[in-house]
Amino acid sequence: MTGPFATRETVKQVEEGDVLAPKFDANGLLPAVTTDFDSGELLMHGFMNETALKKTIETGEAHYFSRSQQAIWHKGATSGLMQEIVEMRIDDDQDCVWLRVRIGGNGASCHVGYRSCFYRSLPTGALPETPVELTYEETEKIFDPVDIYGDAPNPTKL
Amino acid sequence: MTGPFATRETVKQVEEGDVLAPKFDANGLLPAVTTDFDSGELLMHGFMNETALKKTIETGEAHYFSRSQQAIWHKGATSGLMQEIVEMRIDDDQDCVWLRVRIGGNGASCHVGYRSCFYRSLPTGALPETPVELTYEETEKIFDPVDIYGDAPNPTKL
Repeated sequence: MTGPFATRETVKQVEEGDVLAPKFDANGLLPAVTTDFDSGELLMHGFMNETALKKTIETGEAHYFSRSQQAIWHKGATSGLMQEIVEMRIDDDQDCVWLRVRIGGNGASCHVGYRSCFYRSLPTGALPETPVELTYEETEKIFDPVDIYGDAPNPTKL
Repeated sequence: MTGPFATRETVKQVEEGDVLAPKFDANGLLPAVTTDFDSGELLMHGFMNETALKKTIETGEAHYFSRSQQAIWHKGATSGLMQEIVEMRIDDDQDCVWLRVRIGGNGASCHVGYRSCFYRSLPTGALPETPVELTYEETEKIFDPVDIYGDAPNPTKL
């Protein structure tokens, strides 16, 4: 057995072992959760394929797999806001990674212009008859997307 | 239009609007990222279907969709360690939710017995020829899974 990923042999090896044996889903992807190392804030949620995971390990900078573009996505390559990995963790069954990062520049992670992609909250409680209303937890954008991305296609799909 | 979820009509509405218009994937799921409200630690990553999202909103306790059991999973129903939602957020394109929770009892979230599912880290740097070695960031289990789950099937799949 060679290469950076071990073959998954037993549940005990995967959960209680000390070698990396990642599991990619039917589309060859695993979710990646990215938080700000200092504040703990959730910045974004993305996916990695095997190449993105290898590049992230190798470079110490977050690489994802863009499902909308079907390509490796070196986060920050366009905006200059790379995500430097301070610590990287894997979960019990090794099908999800957690990146704890620091971001250069203005510290934004979200293509809409906010610091975090999770800039809106929703209330819990009895389900309303009309759509649940969202509250903005970030009130100001850190950058104007047009300045950074120009007229590049918006990654959000309906 | 009635019910708690709005129809997704435009990118602007989804990204910059103030109504909940979630997007479920081809399998009817969206990822849910769960962190400890006080420490910011990533506890787990799961998935929700429409019912799980509604039940989470309605009860203020995290409900997921178990892919291995193909069923709604009220987290903590077996172990007693429910996840009480302090704040719930949605991301820019509304295909992922962030749960900020407090957990009762011993505070564990992971079926292996650790506090977080992400109890192991991996190093960045040149890719080794042999599998990447993991480091335990939690050194002691909080509970013994056998005490809690008995001989229930392990959710980890190879």
